[in-house]
Amino acid sequence: MSLRNLLIRTIHQKNTFINFASVAVRSNQNKHEHSEQRSKYYGKAVAAAALGSVLIGSSISEHMDKKKVSISKHKTETTSEQIVEAGAKRPDLPTYRADEVSKHDTKASFWVTYKHGVYDVTEFLPSHPGGEQILNAAGLSIEPFWNVYGMHKTQEVYKLLETYRIGNLHEDDVVDHTDDELWVKEPFRDKRLIVKTAKPFNAEIPAKLQIEHFDTPNELFYVRQHMPVPELDASDHRIRVLIKDESTIIKEFTLQELDQFERHSIRAALMCAGNRRSEMNKVKPVKGISWAGGAISNAVWSGVYLRDVLLSCGVDPEHTEGKHVIFTGSDIDATGVNFSTSIPLDMALNPNGRILLATQMNGVTLPADHGYPLRVVVPGAPAVRSVKWLESITVSYEESPSHWHQKDYRSFNPSKTWETADFPSAPPVYSLPVTSAICDPQDGERVPVRDGFIEVRGYAYSGGGAKILRVDISPDRGESWVQADRVVADEAPHQKHYAWTLWTARVPVSKDQKEVELWAKATDSNFNTQPEKFDDIWNIRGILSNAYHKVTVKLQH
Amino acid sequence: MSLRNLLIRTIHQKNTFINFASVAVRSNQNKHEHSEQRSKYYGKAVAAAALGSVLIGSSISEHMDKKKVSISKHKTETTSEQIVEAGAKRPDLPTYRADEVSKHDTKASFWVTYKHGVYDVTEFLPSHPGGEQILNAAGLSIEPFWNVYGMHKTQEVYKLLETYRIGNLHEDDVVDHTDDELWVKEPFRDKRLIVKTAKPFNAEIPAKLQIEHFDTPNELFYVRQHMPVPELDASDHRIRVLIKDESTIIKEFTLQELDQFERHSIRAALMCAGNRRSEMNKVKPVKGISWAGGAISNAVWSGVYLRDVLLSCGVDPEHTEGKHVIFTGSDIDATGVNFSTSIPLDMALNPNGRILLATQMNGVTLPADHGYPLRVVVPGAPAVRSVKWLESITVSYEESPSHWHQKDYRSFNPSKTWETADFPSAPPVYSLPVTSAICDPQDGERVPVRDGFIEVRGYAYSGGGAKILRVDISPDRGESWVQADRVVADEAPHQKHYAWTLWTARVPVSKDQKEVELWAKATDSNFNTQPEKFDDIWNIRGILSNAYHKVTVKLQH
Repeated sequence: MSLRNLLIRTIHQKNTFINFASVAVRSNQNKHEHSEQRSKYYGKAVAAAALGSVLIGSSISEHMDKKKVSISKHKTETTSEQIVEAGAKRPDLPTYRADEVSKHDTKASFWVTYKHGVYDVTEFLPSHPGGEQILNAAGLSIEPFWNVYGMHKTQEVYKLLETYRIGNLHEDDVVDHTDDELWVKEPFRDKRLIVKTAKPFNAEIPAKLQIEHFDTPNELFYVRQHMPVPELDASDHRIRVLIKDESTIIKEFTLQELDQFERHSIRAALMCAGNRRSEMNKVKPVKGISWAGGAISNAVWSGVYLRDVLLSCGVDPEHTEGKHVIFTGSDIDATGVNFSTSIPLDMALNPNGRILLATQMNGVTLPADHGYPLRVVVPGAPAVRSVKWLESITVSYEESPSHWHQKDYRSFNPSKTWETADFPSAPPVYSLPVTSAICDPQDGERVPVRDGFIEVRGYAYSGGGAKILRVDISPDRGESWVQADRVVADEAPHQKHYAWTLWTARVPVSKDQKEVELWAKATDSNFNTQPEKFDDIWNIRGILSNAYHKVTVKLQH
Repeated sequence: MSLRNLLIRTIHQKNTFINFASVAVRSNQNKHEHSEQRSKYYGKAVAAAALGSVLIGSSISEHMDKKKVSISKHKTETTSEQIVEAGAKRPDLPTYRADEVSKHDTKASFWVTYKHGVYDVTEFLPSHPGGEQILNAAGLSIEPFWNVYGMHKTQEVYKLLETYRIGNLHEDDVVDHTDDELWVKEPFRDKRLIVKTAKPFNAEIPAKLQIEHFDTPNELFYVRQHMPVPELDASDHRIRVLIKDESTIIKEFTLQELDQFERHSIRAALMCAGNRRSEMNKVKPVKGISWAGGAISNAVWSGVYLRDVLLSCGVDPEHTEGKHVIFTGSDIDATGVNFSTSIPLDMALNPNGRILLATQMNGVTLPADHGYPLRVVVPGAPAVRSVKWLESITVSYEESPSHWHQKDYRSFNPSKTWETADFPSAPPVYSLPVTSAICDPQDGERVPVRDGFIEVRGYAYSGGGAKILRVDISPDRGESWVQADRVVADEAPHQKHYAWTLWTARVPVSKDQKEVELWAKATDSNFNTQPEKFDDIWNIRGILSNAYHKVTVKLQH
């Protein structure tokens, strides 16, 4: 069943509108441990998905027979006449926290949860009809898996499960898994990512890892999803190009057919327009994922130029006025609408823009989380324009009509509220302003002083093809500035420069100083700089949060 | 005699190094009236220059005969044996201020000055051998003219002059004209321009005039010169294109030959990198002309694309790395060196860059002050790159070696001093950051309040092809912001947008408020904004001075 059908079935059968935003917010409100626990699901779930056909291929009754065998082996007896509500609270049993359960994630001690129930299923492992994929649920809830593999949801299985019952999951750790069937096929995610919301999956790269590599390893690249990750296959994936001019021209390309165009590689950072929102949030709360500075990563993308594809389809580069290019992804929201956004045609055709239809990231096939098998990469633009899982390109007199394009990624002055902000009149964000962040040391850390200096490291970036020319650090709230002297940057010239810049500064501190407040400020090749404070760039959506990064650290003399 | 020869003669014969910078500074220190008086010279002098050949064509002795006739007519007698020092102080005569003298500028009452002397030459007018060009000196010093037309510098003429003596020029109004021969052929300048330095001529457009026209009338376009304006002739002007690659290719084009390329018109503001320096100057003094906000104007430029010319000369657009395009003007400094600067070749060939070799400004032939007969226009760059009086274009592996390129128009952090700033390591400014200014009302003005609002008007601009998306005004130091609602802008899209933007905002004020401090802040299409204060962008040269514009005005309820 396709994800779209699954969704539509969900909506119609259950008559439940799945509010993704509220899932995200709810999830975000959970404790950090909790988020990490959730992220584990998705990591394991990908293996389960791969093995799914094995399970589905076997006969249910066959599994049941095996399960009956295991019942008799177990210590606790239940009668087969009783109606069992699996995972109901059991006041007679002890309570466990999720983090305690999660420690039992090996074949030697294998615990799972289901609703309020905690189960030690170590002994059951060898007889699991689905084989080793049960290992993906080690220390976690089995509910998301059962939501997908619904054959588990029978009295027989419930009874079997309750025979392994050892306790109750702490009230605060019980998660609503009703829509997990949409999410269970999410790809594996590196555990080092800091999960901000689990569904959709949004996770940032930890600051110190961020600056360890100039090109971020794919598994550490921050992840920003609006919806579940669609399952696509490169071998039969096609993109449609629609030119809505006087009459509509439609062309289709398989990935193989795209190879007719010259291949190019572009080094480009992608940054969420909401990166560093958590700092703006401190001025006055804003709506959106509370990213620290980890919603930016850098990679080399390979593919063909969008420009070449559009020109081959007959798009006229001399008549771009008022036209837009709409990118539509395969990811679908709860109402069955595909993700989409657009950029102006003029921008799409700009030879310096180097917009790619990319199939590779850092030399390997795009990971599922980053758009497998085909995504757009719009260098210099907020990453939302770099549509993943691309399935169509439409040249149109209209911008994308989608919610994500019309009602998001637009900016207002600090006095505009959700009531007074007029989205249609605000221009969409197609290019990002200059920013920088201190990644090492982190706020509150102890830092060794050597010969009167501390070492400060971070990144800087500017959109629209601008290059970082200088990063200055102040150790005294702007009284003096030290220029970062070790800078790693891409060779590309101004106006075609899309990578980030990593920098290191040697900052002087005095002998009697116990702590220091560090300010970071970048200057780009248009000589734009960051504003000092967030106050005057505050906006309801918390985007474009590019004021000086300020951290206070303790000095170890 | 060419300006270059004139200069070299000046240097060698007089053994005097003419320090243009010190002339400028000296001139700048003069009172404003004084500057205006000086600007008058240059206005009149252009006519004198045009008529110069008439005078030179006549025989000197012939003039002398006529002058002898006029001597006998005059009231004051001098003996021909006496050595006369024209313009020496005469304690027996009254003292006049320059502004009094300047009122006698008609045929009915015609006064001039020479060194300390004031002369009423009304009666002499009909017998002037050079005819009516004497009218160009009405109410002014004749010294600059005599510096050029040296045949006046004889005892006979001095004696004749002294017969018209009526007084002494006030000590404060006596100007050193020794180098005026370099400057006398300067073009006519509109008296409404605010002269910052007379030699070289640098003048800004008054704020209220600035926003009266979207395309600034040529005569009001701010003027920024580094040297005297060269005299060139379109009919025999040629530009050389030198491609210094493996071997040097040299091509030459007359202006007519440039017409082989397609003609284009681009609307672009030009702004001096030092515009608004006077505000940065208040933080801590900086070096440079103390511009208010008037060193930016907007025009439609017409000509051919530099890109087309370079490609026709065989420049390879695929191999631009490390190469530069040096523009050399016909204006020459005191050491005989032509003005020059450069831009990266990649920038020169950027199709979106729309760099022009322009012959027209707002539909008419370029005025002398703006580069007649040919100038470069590099939209989005500091105006210094838009070299006037273009005489050669060199594609080279080196940037321009000139002082103006190597030792100016580069920026440093606020802690760098003239001693510590390392010019070679600082990247040249090739693109300007976002800025804005309030032009009406001006600081300190009284403003009428209508229905609880005042009207505030100004301009905004961003370099590198960025467009202004929003201008916000705060009447309460950032507590609240009002978006300017009436905005005049060019249609060109982001990345090709080079014009300025004029804006009007309706700003609310309260009934009991007596004055209001207004802050203006622009946001461009890269979503860069201005810094609030000048402190953190302060730099020794005072360039890129783009913090919020702040004015305090009195309210008339």
